Amino acid sequence: MTVVTLLSDFGLADSYVAEMKGVILSINPHTRLVDINNEIEKFNVRMGAFILASATPYFPLGTIHVAVVDPGVGTKRRPIIVETKRGFYVGPDNGLLMLAAQQEDLIKVYHIVNQKYMLSRVSNTFHGRDIFAPVAAHLTAGTKPSMFGPVIKDYVFPEFAKPQINRGRVAGEVLHVDGFGNVISNISAEDLDKAGFLKGDSLSARIGGKTLTSKFFSAYGEVPAGTALALIGGTNFLEVAVNQGNASRKFKAKVGDSFNISAQV
Amino acid sequence: MTVVTLLSDFGLADSYVAEMKGVILSINPHTRLVDINNEIEKFNVRMGAFILASATPYFPLGTIHVAVVDPGVGTKRRPIIVETKRGFYVGPDNGLLMLAAQQEDLIKVYHIVNQKYMLSRVSNTFHGRDIFAPVAAHLTAGTKPSMFGPVIKDYVFPEFAKPQINRGRVAGEVLHVDGFGNVISNISAEDLDKAGFLKGDSLSARIGGKTLTSKFFSAYGEVPAGTALALIGGTNFLEVAVNQGNASRKFKAKVGDSFNISAQV
Amino acid sequence: MTVVTLLSDFGLADSYVAEMKGVILSINPHTRLVDINNEIEKFNVRMGAFILASATPYFPLGTIHVAVVDPGVGTKRRPIIVETKRGFYVGPDNGLLMLAAQQEDLIKVYHIVNQKYMLSRVSNTFHGRDIFAPVAAHLTAGTKPSMFGPVIKDYVFPEFAKPQINRGRVAGEVLHVDGFGNVISNISAEDLDKAGFLKGDSLSARIGGKTLTSKFFSAYGEVPAGTALALIGGTNFLEVAVNQGNASRKFKAKVGDSFNISAQV
Repeated sequence: MTVVTLLSDFGLADSYVAEMKGVILSINPHTRLVDINNEIEKFNVRMGAFILASATPYFPLGTIHVAVVDPGVGTKRRPIIVETKRGFYVGPDNGLLMLAAQQEDLIKVYHIVNQKYMLSRVSNTFHGRDIFAPVAAHLTAGTKPSMFGPVIKDYVFPEFAKPQINRGRVAGEVLHVDGFGNVISNISAEDLDKAGFLKGDSLSARIGGKTLTSKFFSAYGEVPAGTALALIGGTNFLEVAVNQGNASRKFKAKVGDSFNISAQV
Repeated sequence: MTVVTLLSDFGLADSYVAEMKGVILSINPHTRLVDINNEIEKFNVRMGAFILASATPYFPLGTIHVAVVDPGVGTKRRPIIVETKRGFYVGPDNGLLMLAAQQEDLIKVYHIVNQKYMLSRVSNTFHGRDIFAPVAAHLTAGTKPSMFGPVIKDYVFPEFAKPQINRGRVAGEVLHVDGFGNVISNISAEDLDKAGFLKGDSLSARIGGKTLTSKFFSAYGEVPAGTALALIGGTNFLEVAVNQGNASRKFKAKVGDSFNISAQV
Repeated sequence: MTVVTLLSDFGLADSYVAEMKGVILSINPHTRLVDINNEIEKFNVRMGAFILASATPYFPLGTIHVAVVDPGVGTKRRPIIVETKRGFYVGPDNGLLMLAAQQEDLIKVYHIVNQKYMLSRVSNTFHGRDIFAPVAAHLTAGTKPSMFGPVIKDYVFPEFAKPQINRGRVAGEVLHVDGFGNVISNISAEDLDKAGFLKGDSLSARIGGKTLTSKFFSAYGEVPAGTALALIGGTNFLEVAVNQGNASRKFKAKVGDSFNISAQV
């Protein structure tokens, strides 16, 4: 039984997510469906990408992730399948899938064009149900990704999925500010690893115009209340937080600001 | 593994939906549970009927749909099973199930009276858990619908499930106004088919006191921004929309208004 | 296929619940996951305990319930497994699990210490994903509870899980005031049984400083509109309600107030 996860900005007030599940179960009743989050802020591709990339490392090998935050539905943006070392991502070619996909080592990207694997009536407003859901279901049933369409190389790879990694230095940006005011970057645990940062190392984090010098921690409680710190906390991404305080206010940080770190010797 | 869907106005703040799922899994652990929507506006039977009828066409043959929007719980309103060509509906006899059921060709309606298939202690406040959930579970296990009680003919068939269909003319009503102001009728794709309307035909839609002449479209983007149009969009029902605008304001339309269409030659 | 339920205060805006599900399915893909409620008010252990205890009686024998409302995460509060006659509870040792567990006859409580059954990297902020989810998954796979750590006797047993039961008399407290103003006690149907109360008996309920004399009913509609009554209604707990009215206002009752009943002869 293959796991299929769903992420979208469809909310819970309509029947959209249920329609996608109905389509998947109609094609392969042995699929195991898990919601990641269907309450992504409308059209907020960056938030969708962040939540997706936070969750997918914990799913089994072979999981198929369907994600739909899709302001360009009905335009020429392409429907794609991303094949990685751990599974598949199905959704729009707008960058939504790439933060998660690159954590797992991206293998190939396919442009979905084969109408055989879509619903017979494809609407211009709801590719989640009419294209992405049936494609995911056919993947669970063992259809090879190359059956859906050609490999493409010019897929959208958004800035927020491209931190610049060098030895002892990573240049990224603010990806998300959570409900506690924690300022979360697009720099993943894997990126820090590649740049040679270890837990306990001293680093300098520059967010927008402000700088924090901190050790690289793993829990808020490792510093006194009111103190700022850099850590990999609950998510897989480097964040700056204030223990029992609000880092976004202290650093006047907002989504999209630069977030650069360098080693302190 | 039979699919059982759940729709209700129970919300997410309590344990009600979980209790229903526990009851179903206790009777038949091989059931596959899918939420359609448990955030229906309290006691809004019409909204429940609309969301149910939007979702159920996408589910597998043999699916059992449990729906509970039930202002009359504890009174003499009857618990029923509706058998259709595609599956079963279980819920109160208040019209909630009928918009969906008639899309699938209704076969028979049964009055649930056999206490053998209810929880041993039936509360007056929660038939979802005490009657509808166990009945659905027993249906998944292969119990024939006639085992639950007698066939009835005088079930409630609400006005909103009865558009008047003639060649080139359908008289319906406004079923729902969605978050974008789209005005959705109770006239389904199947009804339009029966009345002989084809995509691209010209039609006149009269909503309350206002009239729109439009072709029968299938996507908002087929007309310029700001232009009103009639279409089958994301749902299975005819709607009037304004591309990138708000049709409910333009037509001063509200739920329950008449929504009549006729062919334009 | 073992059922694992989830209850938490994580909300739906993040990926936390999905991460827990991913961890569970990675360890045992044959687990059947059911959400009880992930919208518990932040850090409200009492509300979590109430919702958990309302739902769990309806789940199959052998179900494993994971519950995380955990203001003490990262401190010395212990992660525990509670074994009962009906299944297992996994979560923090802060009383959250005990209202539900004692309804099912508590057998033993284990302190989870064996790191073999945790994620390899245990964060200080998210024991739901790093400890409770993997422990639950290993329980579904048949690992004996004693493998996770030693039996403990000094677990937290909160006041709200300890109504004082005597023949014809129970001393409890207000556990929850629901959206309708119904005042729900911590006195379960089982407690009333032990104290010898039967449906239809007359009783006197004293909430905070106010007293109600009422029969012990089972539905709001058994008294005229506007009349107060004591009943076991939709939940498994004794409540005081006003038919079509608001009991919390009438009795000026709030969570934590004393709620004592005695038999009236």
